[in-house]
Formats: sequence, C-alpha cells, structure tokens
Amino acid sequence: MSGNFLALAQPGVQQLSPYVPGKPVDELARELNLDPSKIVKLASNENPLGPSPKVLAAIREELAELTRYPDGNGFALKSLLAQKCGVELNQVTLGNGSNDILELVGRAYLAPGLNAVFSEHAFAVYPIVTQAVGADARIIPAKDWGHDLPAMLAAIDAQTRVVFIANPNNPTGTWFDAQALNDFLQDVPEHVLVVLDEAYIEYAEGSDLPDGLDFLAAYPNLLVSRTFSKAYGLASLRVGYGLSSAVVADVLNRVRQPFNVNTLALAAACAAVKDTEYLEESRRVNESGMLQLQEGFREMGLGWIPSKGNFICVDLGQVAAPVFQGLLREGVIVRPVANYGMPNHLRITIGLPAENSRFLEALAKVLARG
Amino acid sequence: MSGNFLALAQPGVQQLSPYVPGKPVDELARELNLDPSKIVKLASNENPLGPSPKVLAAIREELAELTRYPDGNGFALKSLLAQKCGVELNQVTLGNGSNDILELVGRAYLAPGLNAVFSEHAFAVYPIVTQAVGADARIIPAKDWGHDLPAMLAAIDAQTRVVFIANPNNPTGTWFDAQALNDFLQDVPEHVLVVLDEAYIEYAEGSDLPDGLDFLAAYPNLLVSRTFSKAYGLASLRVGYGLSSAVVADVLNRVRQPFNVNTLALAAACAAVKDTEYLEESRRVNESGMLQLQEGFREMGLGWIPSKGNFICVDLGQVAAPVFQGLLREGVIVRPVANYGMPNHLRITIGLPAENSRFLEALAKVLARG
Repeated sequence: MSGNFLALAQPGVQQLSPYVPGKPVDELARELNLDPSKIVKLASNENPLGPSPKVLAAIREELAELTRYPDGNGFALKSLLAQKCGVELNQVTLGNGSNDILELVGRAYLAPGLNAVFSEHAFAVYPIVTQAVGADARIIPAKDWGHDLPAMLAAIDAQTRVVFIANPNNPTGTWFDAQALNDFLQDVPEHVLVVLDEAYIEYAEGSDLPDGLDFLAAYPNLLVSRTFSKAYGLASLRVGYGLSSAVVADVLNRVRQPFNVNTLALAAACAAVKDTEYLEESRRVNESGMLQLQEGFREMGLGWIPSKGNFICVDLGQVAAPVFQGLLREGVIVRPVANYGMPNHLRITIGLPAENSRFLEALAKVLARG
Repeated sequence: MSGNFLALAQPGVQQLSPYVPGKPVDELARELNLDPSKIVKLASNENPLGPSPKVLAAIREELAELTRYPDGNGFALKSLLAQKCGVELNQVTLGNGSNDILELVGRAYLAPGLNAVFSEHAFAVYPIVTQAVGADARIIPAKDWGHDLPAMLAAIDAQTRVVFIANPNNPTGTWFDAQALNDFLQDVPEHVLVVLDEAYIEYAEGSDLPDGLDFLAAYPNLLVSRTFSKAYGLASLRVGYGLSSAVVADVLNRVRQPFNVNTLALAAACAAVKDTEYLEESRRVNESGMLQLQEGFREMGLGWIPSKGNFICVDLGQVAAPVFQGLLREGVIVRPVANYGMPNHLRITIGLPAENSRFLEALAKVLARG
C-alpha cells in the first residue's frame, strides 16, 4: 500500500475544506501596508465593546495557576450555567467554543451512511462537521433567507440522526417563533437529535424569538448550543456550551477532550455569566447600531435582510466581491457570504457608532466609484 | 426507531470511558476539608516552577483583544516553531494540547475495520482516540516497562494505519535510543503513520534519547507531537503541536477546529518558545528533584522504574491503592496507575525540593502505618 497520506485519510476528511474565518486585522495591515489601529473590522460578529473589566479581573486572578491543568470537569462554570439555565449539572456540556459542541454531536451521532439535515444559508460549521465524519448533508432550500422548517421536517428519513437549526440564523439573521419551533419539535422523529444553535440568542431577548431552554424538558432529543463568543465578548477564549438531556450530555462528554476549555477561559466565562451589566450594554449598543446601519442602507437605497443577530446582511443588488475588496482598501473588513450562496450580499457585524459610520462612509465611497 | 441516545451513538463512542485526570487540589480540599494551600499535588506532571514572568507579560499584553477571535492560522506561533524546529510552516499543526494532535490523527486516519498499534503501559489517550472512532487497538506487551519495538513492528498489518510510540513514555518514564528508533522507522510500512509522542522530550535533552525531528526528513510517515504543558509550564492553556510532512499536516489542519488554540494560549506559547531561561531552570529543578526522590526511595528500600520524564514510578511491592488513599489524607496527591496495568506502582511528578520532601515524609508515614 502506498504512503499517500491524503489518499489514506478517511474519505470524508479527504473532501474537507476548512472553515474560512473573517480576515484578521493584522493580515490586512500586512497586505495593504495599513496602520492596524485605523482598520475597522466588522467581519466576525465580535463584540465591539472590548473586554469586560470583571472578566479581565477574573483572568488576572487565575494567572498564578498557569502551570496546572484546567479543571477537566469545569465544575464552577457548569454549576453557574446549570443554575442560570434551570437545568441539572449533568445536562451541561462545555465546549472549546460552540463549534466544539457542534463537532462533538457530529462525532457522536453521524457516520457514513447517516445524514444531517440543515438549511441553505446556514452556518458553515454544520456542513464541515457532517463532512468530517463522512455523513451526508441534506441541505434544504431556504424560504425568505430563513429556515423552511416544514421542508426540513419532510427531508428527515430513517438515516437522519441530526438536524441543525439556528435561531437567529447566521449569516442571514433570520428567525422563527415559538409556535414554529414547537410544531417542528413535535413532528421530528424521536431518533433525531435537534441541535438548536442559539449563538446569538442574547441579542434577541424580549423579541418574539423562543428561548430554546423552555423546550428542553419536553423534548429529550433537543440540544441547545450557546456561546460566550458574541454577547459575552469572549471570542478569543473559546467557550461554548450545550444543554440537553443528561443522556446526550453524557455521550458528548465522553467524546469531549478532557481539557477542552482552558483555565483562563473557564475563569473568564464564570465572570461573564455574572456580568449582567456588560450583557445589557452589549444589547443596547447592538440595537442602536442596527438602526444606524439600516438608516444608512436606506439612504443609499440598499435593501437588507431583517436580522435578530449582531450583524446584518446588506443586499448590494450586484456581485459583492468587488465591493468587499474596495472596502478592504478603505481599511474596512466585512464578511463576504458568496460561500453561503449569497453572492450579492455582505454581512456586516454591528460595531460601535463610530465604526458603523466609518463603514457606511466607506461603502458609499466604494459604491459611488461604481 | 427509539430515542435512546446512548444506543444511537456510534458504537465506538458507546464503549468510550473518558480520560481520568489527576485529582484537582480544590476537589481534595472540599472532600477532606483540608486547607488547599497545604496540599501538595504531584499527580499530573505539571511544572512545579509556577508561571514564567515572560509568559505572564505576554498574556497581559493580549488582554485588550479578548473580544476578537484568535488567529485561526496561529501564524506567529507556527513561524516560531518552524524556525526553532527547522521545518517549514506547512509542516506544523497546532493543537489544543498535544491531546488534540493525537485525536486529529485518530479522526483523520482511523475508522472501524482499521487498527492502531501501541504499547502496554502507554498514555491513556492512545486507546481513547482509537476507541472514539471505532478502530481496533492492538496493545503490545511491554518489555521492562518500555516499548517492545520489534514486537510492535510484528503486530502491524494491512489494516494498521497508526502506531503510537512515546519517548520517553508516560507513565513509565522509559525510553529508547536513536538506533532503536531508526531500526523501527526503517521497517514500518509506508502506509502506517508513526506518531512519536515527545511530550517530555525537553527533560531528556543531552541524554541518549534521539530527537524525533532528526528523522522527519527521511520518513514522510513520521509525526512528532510535542506540548507546552510540561517543561514550558503551560498546562492550563492547552497548546501542543505536531511536526510532520506537509501532506499529513494539511490533512490534520483540515480536521482541526478553526480556532482550536485560544488567543491567550497562542501569546503565552510564543513567549514560552523564546524563554530559554525558564526551560533550563525546569530541567535543573527536575534533575535534582529526580535524584532527591530516588534517594528517598532507596532509604525506604523501594524500587522504581528509571525515568527520563518529569515523573517517576515507584514500586511499592504491594497494592498501591491504599497507599494512594493514605497519601491523600496527608494532603499529598500523586497518581495511581492501576488503570495502566501497574497496580503496585504510583507515579510521582517531580516537584520543588520542599514538595518532594513533603511527599517522601508522607510516604514513609503511610508505609510505616502498614
């Protein structure tokens, strides 16, 4: 047998294309010889507020323990999350970001011959974790940019093990209400795990979006995944979590690496859970920034997809790639979504007021150039 | 189909028992109502020196970027490692600890019907990553507590995709020399990836242990895995790396989560690579502590397995579990290794001189009680 280590890799892995992250500021600065401090990055749905002082204090307190392994059970964080979410400790799975949770699901429940159902224009990590284990992806056409839940339901068969749904959805920002979710959950066969990705749920509080946790008790085949990367402002630290039945959590915890979340991340997340002030400020800044961007788009005669996240997809009415490149030259990084089947849109993360203005001015300038 | 989510999990996952880490200090303090500051933990091969000031400074500098995603390519760290190790950037794979590297290998190259070969008394993560993907483990009896490389070679067949070898080995501390490694690599079929786990290699420098990197150019089926958790003192932060052919690194990087190593971990590791002073001090403390423990064992008439790591397995000549429990009551945590097929041994991490003395006194006391 030959030593071709691409051909020797598992078939799913051979076909795998890695996730493409938002362009880092330093990279753009290097490429275009720009001053990094002048670059505005609205590309990765990061929290524009900067770190919470309480989180920083918690990290500093933990620095003496750097040479020790993390608490592999994440006891302190899991206790806080269980209390906050009204579940038992054994229903919580911690992840190295919610990406890790999604991957654990794939590794535990998918394999060649089985399939996962998810929507067109859904988060790029769903196809990646499905492909990585050689399972089939059933991608269901979107309806008005959002999930077509009845069509997704109809696509489930005996080989389906997982359905990924996101509320609100990234990158479109679309959402469904409690009635739609309940109707869906009622009809999903009990052998199918429904992964409800609520990475952006904190931004939607008080709106007509359901809280996935309200459905956990009734549906043992439901897993709600959440993250500290967005409204909690900890993207650098990689902390996410899954809430599910104890059985599903037990399975995911077996697959989980023993120290998947590191010590400083655990400490930071514990502080973040308690820091309601930061969370509220995140929401306020997001809400007003969302209005600011919509107002700007309206003035430019551009359409957009209504969004409940911390980002918005603007419809340029033309292929977006050259506009994206034009914005880079202006020192503004946003996110192209052609790889999501949206070649005419750009996804803009809501920034601070000044960042939003910089972006809007740059966009106007680039569009005027034609 | 029923909604039994244990039965629905992949067969390998259903049989999976998670890794059992060393007992955390806080856990013992809670259980026995002890003062945590009086507890000595020599259980997890952690660096007893405490954090390097240069690493702490690097982390503090990075704190402003907490809300931003890590550099998913780990450009700065990979550049430093490539330079230090004399390889190209595209030969480096970063891991969330070297555990992550071992797991990436399993996910990329193992599956049901294939097998991995490793030694009796080898690191517990080898069977875990093999089991997690439903592959078969071929466990080869050890020779004098160490790897029997010719027997491992003889166990390789057409279904073998990975051989895990560790130098020095954990938990036994045993090692093999350059000649043995070269003979082995020469005879391993080219379709088999040899994972040479060098988690403890920094402690063995200057001894008769080979440097795995010297063999990379000649053997495209060799992967060397290393970690910042031991001699570099960053166990809390989870940074490991794999060095291999560019093809293998490409495959592993496809499977790798896009942000598997977090921002503070990347910054800390960059500082640690350059901090040769800390590394040398780690070695000095380890060398003298190793002699201190051996002297103590000799006085108590106890045997041990000669070790090139930062730990040593003492042979109690009796079942070790009650002694382990007795040590806990004295506020000293060491590592039982019965799960490694070594019921009469305990593995002791080399600590600071005072920690080593505390342990030796506690051991004498517990043994005297009979």
